[in-house]
Amino acid sequence: MDFKELAKEYGTPLYVYDFDYMTAQYNELKEAFRGRKSIIAYAVKANSNLSVIKHFAKMGSGADCVSIGEVRRAFLAGIPAYKIIFSGVGKSDAEIREAIERDILYINVESEAELGRVELIAKELNVAARISIRVNPNIDPKTHPYISTGLHDNKFGVDLDSAKRMYIKANNSQNLDPVGIHFHIGSQLTELQPIREAAEIVADLVRSLDAIDIELKFFDVGGGLGIKYDNETLIQPYDYAQAILGTLTGLDMTILCEPGRFLTANAGYFVTKVLYEKQNGSKKFVVVDGAMNDLLRPSLYNAYHEIEALTENKDDLREVDIVGPVCESGDFFAKDYALPPLNHNDLLVIKSAGAYGFGMGSNYNTRGRSAEVAVENGKARLIRRRENFDDLIALETKYLED
Amino acid sequence: MDFKELAKEYGTPLYVYDFDYMTAQYNELKEAFRGRKSIIAYAVKANSNLSVIKHFAKMGSGADCVSIGEVRRAFLAGIPAYKIIFSGVGKSDAEIREAIERDILYINVESEAELGRVELIAKELNVAARISIRVNPNIDPKTHPYISTGLHDNKFGVDLDSAKRMYIKANNSQNLDPVGIHFHIGSQLTELQPIREAAEIVADLVRSLDAIDIELKFFDVGGGLGIKYDNETLIQPYDYAQAILGTLTGLDMTILCEPGRFLTANAGYFVTKVLYEKQNGSKKFVVVDGAMNDLLRPSLYNAYHEIEALTENKDDLREVDIVGPVCESGDFFAKDYALPPLNHNDLLVIKSAGAYGFGMGSNYNTRGRSAEVAVENGKARLIRRRENFDDLIALETKYLED
Ligand SMILES: Cc1ncc(COP(=O)(O)O)c(C=O)c1O
Ligand SMILES: Cc1ncc(COP(=O)(O)O)c(C=O)c1O
Repeated sequence: MDFKELAKEYGTPLYVYDFDYMTAQYNELKEAFRGRKSIIAYAVKANSNLSVIKHFAKMGSGADCVSIGEVRRAFLAGIPAYKIIFSGVGKSDAEIREAIERDILYINVESEAELGRVELIAKELNVAARISIRVNPNIDPKTHPYISTGLHDNKFGVDLDSAKRMYIKANNSQNLDPVGIHFHIGSQLTELQPIREAAEIVADLVRSLDAIDIELKFFDVGGGLGIKYDNETLIQPYDYAQAILGTLTGLDMTILCEPGRFLTANAGYFVTKVLYEKQNGSKKFVVVDGAMNDLLRPSLYNAYHEIEALTENKDDLREVDIVGPVCESGDFFAKDYALPPLNHNDLLVIKSAGAYGFGMGSNYNTRGRSAEVAVENGKARLIRRRENFDDLIALETKYLED
Repeated sequence: MDFKELAKEYGTPLYVYDFDYMTAQYNELKEAFRGRKSIIAYAVKANSNLSVIKHFAKMGSGADCVSIGEVRRAFLAGIPAYKIIFSGVGKSDAEIREAIERDILYINVESEAELGRVELIAKELNVAARISIRVNPNIDPKTHPYISTGLHDNKFGVDLDSAKRMYIKANNSQNLDPVGIHFHIGSQLTELQPIREAAEIVADLVRSLDAIDIELKFFDVGGGLGIKYDNETLIQPYDYAQAILGTLTGLDMTILCEPGRFLTANAGYFVTKVLYEKQNGSKKFVVVDGAMNDLLRPSLYNAYHEIEALTENKDDLREVDIVGPVCESGDFFAKDYALPPLNHNDLLVIKSAGAYGFGMGSNYNTRGRSAEVAVENGKARLIRRRENFDDLIALETKYLED
């Protein structure tokens, strides 16, 4: 990846995505589930650029969406309706209506109250809405509290008893068609055991539903496969698939898997330019042109990203804080990170930035969001142009009174 | 404030700003500095909506800006060049050039390296750039680490010795005109003592510069005045002004003050609608249509915001987590907060949302940002329209290949 050339052509700060890497990740995971019917439903939230989604669409991917906006993106990118699912803990009536009207594969329901809304709206539309229910198996995924989602004290899913009650209700309703079951215990998972346990619990529920003639077709294992930011030991896709399939003996179901981070994180690079070095007391800072409005993960989760300096001199390392221009102490990319001496206009490449990177970007401090570039087969192309000042004020100027 | 009516007219989630409250805050602070020449330079980052800036412009306010985008906003809103300052730890060459060309009051310089860039660019433009230097007085402001900015181990400003060296350098340069001195020790300050100490340290530096014939005109005390989110004891503007003025005996300087939060935070309300209530184990959740992409402060700083339910029944309080639809456990507005039972479509008003609210908003999960409404003299008007799906994909569709 010739980041210097890309920075020259597209400017900085810049997001660069290696589409070939995404292809390889997709194929590895798809291959792991070979022998069973499976749909990889890319979790659009991880990186929702239309060209990224389209890239997965071309490989046959489905889409896991968490807002009607994401559902629309999936359609625009060419994902067929029968591979689109709509998850998320809070869906508005308008979103539920549109999802039903667009006839997507199913709506992942996350509460009894939501089931009621879906039923009501399906009734108005005079259809039976396909649903799955997100079960909260109360398993500790051993990840950051902000990205752990499978414990009772978080907002996601419903407990086993509620799920069963809801399936029975749905099965008895003319306007609900329960077709799937769903769980997702957290993100950036690096241990297999919690996944296996969760799958077992959910598979047992499927069997007990089967026993009362509620037959589900889709076993949706969520996303969450971890990736290498630092020195994590990872779950191998093959072992992941085996662990899940091992819980499904006797059940003829299609696997749905909703990876986000696994497919895109390590395909992405955030390229930023050095503005200055500065020293405060004993502390050294490298001030760059990218900021927390571009990549929030370090501020929000204290997340670690590997950073490479594109300089001739790779030695003489010093510990520095790498910070952006935003007026917050929380605006940093790394603290006490070893980098060589840097000059004005040197480039830094922040790695593993392809998931939950651009998508969490803001215009804080009236900073336009970066351009996004795809690199595929050695060729680069723009997939979203840089925001300029006019973009930022476009929805306000009309209302500026004299 | 008739939030029900506003929600009906403009939809939810919605930001509502009480412009009259902003007026009162501005006047109170301006009044506190009476007897000295002073400029209140509104810190645009706190709420950068053009109509908000214009509201302050009409009262005679200046603007403290931290990007060239904010500088342009200030101009568009009618703030005169001679009341605009440009601060921030990382300014690009293009930003520095434009700031000089626009002939703003001064550039707040935050490092020796930056001083060098400003000088170089001023030389190219054949002018003397007016500057001030941000001094880091190494005072603990006793606030949240993410918003504390006056200690050496953070990225802001330069230490006293460096500052002095830089002033001498600037004074000897044909292309630099040192006119001010600046400090800002943190945000949401609720104790006067650290401010007084910082001001004393900086005033002493001014005197020692005076002694070597470097005469500064502007004493810029930054922003940071705290506001009431919960039960904070606040600094009174009068006491604040007195504490600062008390350190300036013998010095004939214009005070610059850069409040952000103080002027707008408690003028703002974030109005969101209840989607459902849900129960996971012993834990109760209220799921609303607003999310961390609208108001990040609770996720990012674990910030407290008072929340009011607009229901008939204000009793039968239960402890609930108030969460949004975004697929992150970190997407919450409050935890274990006492609210009455709520129904679908009931409204919640999240208070103190007028600063660092909308401005930190994102499109995460493909959620359009809220509309913003101003209320002034009992009349409401839109000041930014709601983002729709087409807005979100506008910069991407063109690049979607077949
Ligand atoms: C329901 C669901 N599916 C899939 C994902 C994607 O997770 P990841 O990017 O870790 O694979 C998430 C992430 O939060 C999720 O909540
Ligand atoms: C230099 C400077 N001035 C002013 C402000 C405004 O601070 P506040 O909103 O707390 O008044 C900030 C905030 O970070 C700042 O960094």
